[in-house]
Amino acid sequence: MIHPVILCGGSGTRLWPTSRKAYPKQFAKLLSDESLYQTTLRRLSGPMFSRPIVMTNELFRFLASQQAGQIGLTDARVVVEPILRDTGPAILAAAMIVAQDEGKDALMLVAPSDHVISDIPSFLASVEAGVKVAETGALVTFGIVPTRPETGYGYLELSAQPNGSGEAISLTSFREKPDAATAAEFLEAGNYLWNGGIFLFRAGDVIASFEANAPQLIAPVRAALDQGEDDLSLFRLGIEGFGAAESISFDYAVMEKADKVAAVPLTCPWSDLGSWDALWAEEQPDAEGVATRGQATAVDCSDSYLRSDDDNIHVVGLGLNDTVVVAMRDAVLVADKDRAQDVKALVNTLREVEAPQADDYPRFHRPWGWYETLCIDSRFQVKRIMVHPGGILSLQSHHHRSEHWIVVSGTAEVTVGEEVKLVTENQSVYIPVGAVHRMANPGKLPMYLIEVQTGSYLGEDDIVRYEDAYGRG
Amino acid sequence: MIHPVILCGGSGTRLWPTSRKAYPKQFAKLLSDESLYQTTLRRLSGPMFSRPIVMTNELFRFLASQQAGQIGLTDARVVVEPILRDTGPAILAAAMIVAQDEGKDALMLVAPSDHVISDIPSFLASVEAGVKVAETGALVTFGIVPTRPETGYGYLELSAQPNGSGEAISLTSFREKPDAATAAEFLEAGNYLWNGGIFLFRAGDVIASFEANAPQLIAPVRAALDQGEDDLSLFRLGIEGFGAAESISFDYAVMEKADKVAAVPLTCPWSDLGSWDALWAEEQPDAEGVATRGQATAVDCSDSYLRSDDDNIHVVGLGLNDTVVVAMRDAVLVADKDRAQDVKALVNTLREVEAPQADDYPRFHRPWGWYETLCIDSRFQVKRIMVHPGGILSLQSHHHRSEHWIVVSGTAEVTVGEEVKLVTENQSVYIPVGAVHRMANPGKLPMYLIEVQTGSYLGEDDIVRYEDAYGRG
Repeated sequence: MIHPVILCGGSGTRLWPTSRKAYPKQFAKLLSDESLYQTTLRRLSGPMFSRPIVMTNELFRFLASQQAGQIGLTDARVVVEPILRDTGPAILAAAMIVAQDEGKDALMLVAPSDHVISDIPSFLASVEAGVKVAETGALVTFGIVPTRPETGYGYLELSAQPNGSGEAISLTSFREKPDAATAAEFLEAGNYLWNGGIFLFRAGDVIASFEANAPQLIAPVRAALDQGEDDLSLFRLGIEGFGAAESISFDYAVMEKADKVAAVPLTCPWSDLGSWDALWAEEQPDAEGVATRGQATAVDCSDSYLRSDDDNIHVVGLGLNDTVVVAMRDAVLVADKDRAQDVKALVNTLREVEAPQADDYPRFHRPWGWYETLCIDSRFQVKRIMVHPGGILSLQSHHHRSEHWIVVSGTAEVTVGEEVKLVTENQSVYIPVGAVHRMANPGKLPMYLIEVQTGSYLGEDDIVRYEDAYGRG
Repeated sequence: MIHPVILCGGSGTRLWPTSRKAYPKQFAKLLSDESLYQTTLRRLSGPMFSRPIVMTNELFRFLASQQAGQIGLTDARVVVEPILRDTGPAILAAAMIVAQDEGKDALMLVAPSDHVISDIPSFLASVEAGVKVAETGALVTFGIVPTRPETGYGYLELSAQPNGSGEAISLTSFREKPDAATAAEFLEAGNYLWNGGIFLFRAGDVIASFEANAPQLIAPVRAALDQGEDDLSLFRLGIEGFGAAESISFDYAVMEKADKVAAVPLTCPWSDLGSWDALWAEEQPDAEGVATRGQATAVDCSDSYLRSDDDNIHVVGLGLNDTVVVAMRDAVLVADKDRAQDVKALVNTLREVEAPQADDYPRFHRPWGWYETLCIDSRFQVKRIMVHPGGILSLQSHHHRSEHWIVVSGTAEVTVGEEVKLVTENQSVYIPVGAVHRMANPGKLPMYLIEVQTGSYLGEDDIVRYEDAYGRG
């Protein structure tokens, strides 16, 4: 049995506006009705695998467990990193957990949550090839056989060219992102792989390698585990210990220095969906190079990607070349496809002009579900609210607004003052200014509710919380 | 006193998505908080002018009177053409109305509702120059001094080059839209003007010219006037008569054949805003050729127009050249600016794929105000509704849906069954399935209301109307 460890704390902005700080790409439905994170979980389930460990951070802890639950993986173990410390400390913490629970010989497969790997049998065959060497004590890194002289990835230099058998090959060196000429040489030479950030080893072996090559991490991460607390279905690492750990990548801390390292070439189709041009390529463009997703119409376009992430928006392109268009309800990106790598810098520009769209997502995800603003004016706001089965909002009151709630699907349990009642589809409730109130979903189906707020001040900060099931202040 | 006649029945789609069949460009807020129609009305008010006559059609009759009222022109006379018959019959009908009410010597200035003319004093000086010749019995057409070899307009050939005095010059011929070489010759020659579709004459003179040159129109248009009916503040031409009139442009019917025709050169800045590239030019692009309107950010763009027609949408352009982006809540256009003329054909393509965005506008304008859908799902819909002061919706019921109404601004008079009551801000009303109901705004300010519908069928056609103040079935 292999213990999957899924790294799920990234907040990539290169796929803005679909991927944002508040709702990054691993959770977005980029290529199907499942998120990349969900597809990753599915890929690493099945007979070869044990229950997954998901390493994530404060912001995404509820998303990570909810999305796992949505695909039936209710036993995923979500570990919360209380502060950003790169992949080194995260993988060490995961290894210590696996070693403690399953023993030092337990195998663990570490994988990012936001890659596309479409040929599962081929991928699993590579994992099996990795198992053979990992069981000899090697740290295995999976590399992707290059298909172009890519300058955006690091490379693994092998001692020999892969012979197509898929067997592990010993590693000569790790190479930084090359310039174009060097990348072309690598491709020509044939004994280089893209560094995919996927690893396989026994928990004891990698801990030993941390002890040998990055001993400064051991004590802080051990302390973080000792200080750790179970919080609902999550395990939260202690901030004192974890905060004291050096922020360092796993490659720098361990892989580049370890003695016994092997690479397994992945021959399956792979993409890290690192930017919009990569996503365009995954969408299988037509003969003119045009790909669309959602409601979109292309007229006389070529080598372009037209994407609508809102059911109500029709995107229309006319005479476009090498252009990416992504439309959402609050933001539209139109970019030269050759500038796709610069979207990250663009998001910084939006932060400078204080556009909330830079980081916020139009649908705000909360432990109990989500809400989105349908309409806002100076004196009123209309929200659509979804509460998960079992979800419960905080007991609260507002100084400046009253609220009308209309349940449009499912059943709500509503508290207003001393009264608690069930409110079903097509019923409404009025919450006067100052009244202590709460809503919850006692049912088995999601509950949808329309909230109409009126008042002189409608900010999210006009909230007095008396009690919260999720430990929020 | 000059009687302005404003032609307001067009439904241009070259500025889609901002301009659509249901809400065409003359009514849209393209360049300011006023529509082009309102700016046109303002330009033709003041001491030289009498109350305006607005020629429009069924679809726009309420918009035309409401937008006139919004800028204080409550005396505008809106004449409804019951069927499309081009400008010939419309101008003849207007001339007959002016002659009947004000006498045959009354001057009338005919102007499109969707042109931009920014230097009003210069324009009025040209009108005064026109008056001098019109009072000698000439039909005056105003032409624009060309600034480029434009192939998109017809031309007026003059007997002499304009000498800068702004005086009228006799006309040699009307020229169709030229090819590029001919347009260049016209520009070089200097005695050609763009045909702007703006006319000045005495009502009796133009009627006499119709009698001489297009006598077939006289009887049908006279019949349409005789059959005409006052309908609220509107005058509706009779469909039997108007329908029998030939559909023909005023230039073809009269101007190209008339004996005594003069042209007055307009030297003021002018644009017909015929396509997005024309709008871009009017927006005064910066040194890189970039113009923005609404929430928009351009990074490394040139010669491009980024426009957001929704307060909640931020449009972002990265590395764009010669590109037009227009974002609305239900549609986004991204076009090569050099293809701006092809937007009209594009709208036909959208009609073929039955995209409602081709013709519908996200805000549906009605005699009593407007509504827009904020959110729609299979079993519920949320609408925002605005009712003008004095506006009254039809008395109606629904078979398949119940409605919650929450007033968020102003006061509503609500009828449910036998009961009539006032509902003010922050109050709500429930309308059960089958209940006969109506809302009206008895106040002096616009009334805004959120409607939450729930039911198994939410189509606009689930409506039984018992009574309607605007004569709708």
